Amino acid sequence: MDFSAPFLTNYWPHLLAAFIGYFTIKFLARSLFGIEITRRFSHEYDPARQLDLERDEDENQGVSGGPQSFEDMTEHIPYRLKKYTEKETFRRAVEFYRMMDERRTVRHFSDDAVPLGVVQTLIKTAGTSPSGAHTQPWTYVVVQDFNLKCQIRKIVEEEEEINYRKRMSATWVKDLEKLRTTWERNVLDVAPYLIMVFKQAYGVGPNGERINHYYSEISISISVGILLAAIQNAGLVTVTSTPLNAGPALRTLLARPVNEKLLLLLPIGYPAHNATVPDLQRRDIKDNHGSDVM
Amino acid sequence: MDFSAPFLTNYWPHLLAAFIGYFTIKFLARSLFGIEITRRFSHEYDPARQLDLERDEDENQGVSGGPQSFEDMTEHIPYRLKKYTEKETFRRAVEFYRMMDERRTVRHFSDDAVPLGVVQTLIKTAGTSPSGAHTQPWTYVVVQDFNLKCQIRKIVEEEEEINYRKRMSATWVKDLEKLRTTWERNVLDVAPYLIMVFKQAYGVGPNGERINHYYSEISISISVGILLAAIQNAGLVTVTSTPLNAGPALRTLLARPVNEKLLLLLPIGYPAHNATVPDLQRRDIKDNHGSDVM
Repeated sequence: MDFSAPFLTNYWPHLLAAFIGYFTIKFLARSLFGIEITRRFSHEYDPARQLDLERDEDENQGVSGGPQSFEDMTEHIPYRLKKYTEKETFRRAVEFYRMMDERRTVRHFSDDAVPLGVVQTLIKTAGTSPSGAHTQPWTYVVVQDFNLKCQIRKIVEEEEEINYRKRMSATWVKDLEKLRTTWERNVLDVAPYLIMVFKQAYGVGPNGERINHYYSEISISISVGILLAAIQNAGLVTVTSTPLNAGPALRTLLARPVNEKLLLLLPIGYPAHNATVPDLQRRDIKDNHGSDVM
Repeated sequence: MDFSAPFLTNYWPHLLAAFIGYFTIKFLARSLFGIEITRRFSHEYDPARQLDLERDEDENQGVSGGPQSFEDMTEHIPYRLKKYTEKETFRRAVEFYRMMDERRTVRHFSDDAVPLGVVQTLIKTAGTSPSGAHTQPWTYVVVQDFNLKCQIRKIVEEEEEINYRKRMSATWVKDLEKLRTTWERNVLDVAPYLIMVFKQAYGVGPNGERINHYYSEISISISVGILLAAIQNAGLVTVTSTPLNAGPALRTLLARPVNEKLLLLLPIGYPAHNATVPDLQRRDIKDNHGSDVM
């Protein structure tokens, strides 16, 4: 019984050290846990999983479909959609094809103003996209502030500088120089808006719990496809670009949470009067590398 | 000089064995090489590469943009696009949003016929999508043959059966049963067409050489987003589904080349008269987990 007092008096520094050690480890564990989460979610896109049937079972929800529990737990309501005549259906399909066939990736922007309300409507349209378990794992950030656009350009250029000096093979240097010129003069500070598309690697529930996002990269890219259609329909242009390693710096600049990763950067505006595009052809549907009917 | 004859007569079995061995090794080497190629291209989608700046340098082409050498090597032509008045731009943006906001993932199909020409026009529209280095890494296969659709259903159900018995955790069994019911009764053999979206893991050039496809999963998903807009515009419905481990078997059934991997399966048709959808809400643009303006 009475050895506890001398025990405490003799060994209190050890107990104090144990306490400090405990909280240090707890803190480290949290940091490490954060890293583990990142790693864990990085598996979401690991093709090895897509090829490995045995390891794939928990990712089979379908982009819109699942988890099926979501489908089944939610109350269902009737769905109605206007049905066009066969002739009208064909006409609408051809008309929409002709409109989209005029879409090109344009790198030469006019600085003509575009109402913010238009851009927000286009992004609302992107938000109608299906997503795995309706997780809507995208965040669209619209940048219109000129100084912020300049900072974004600076970050992109700095990353390209690092690519240029350290990361690129000799054969890439010339191309990258041209790319930088393109970015500097024609896009990032001329287009009235930059649309930054962030991937939510995981969601955060009402009680702060993490929500898995399955197939989020596919879901977000589908929503960007709908955005491109909306942009073309509005008579505007964009360039679907993947920022050159600038994601982390841009996420910090825009103060996005840690679960968001920059996926795409889309400047948006009207094409410059003297805009040009590469003279390329699209694959014909009859091309045997292309579509097929069975 | 004259030792060669006895040499041949004495050692021809060894020489024969050497020949056989040589061709055996050559054959094995080719098989192994094929595996190496597959592995190598599987890295294309490894998020570790996207997170690791140092290893990322050869994947920074941008979805439409690169490799920049492509942009720079191709002759440029002027680009013109009809510019609408500000009022008309707004009207078109809102109208397109309202149309897309009516889009829902529908699992209850009518067997009403849809002209093949319409479906081909929709797929041509998907083919207007941008893609990394204009590689157009997608293959759209349209299945209309009823027997083939039944075989596809059988493969999907068999894979689901394996999931059900071997791969799924107990909590998933009930959901998967419901999913299978859905597939059995309402989709794969009722919808007039199944659109199978294959990812070309790599391209094949005119001289049989392999062509790297960068960001092909993003490019293909963007083209599927454009397809979903075209489907909605035509008054048709689909369900954007990721087949349950059935990819390899379906690739074999449809006799697709080894460089193609099934990414998505989209049944297409008119909604059933009694079609229902889950009563879900889309995230508001002002939701702070959603879009943001800076």
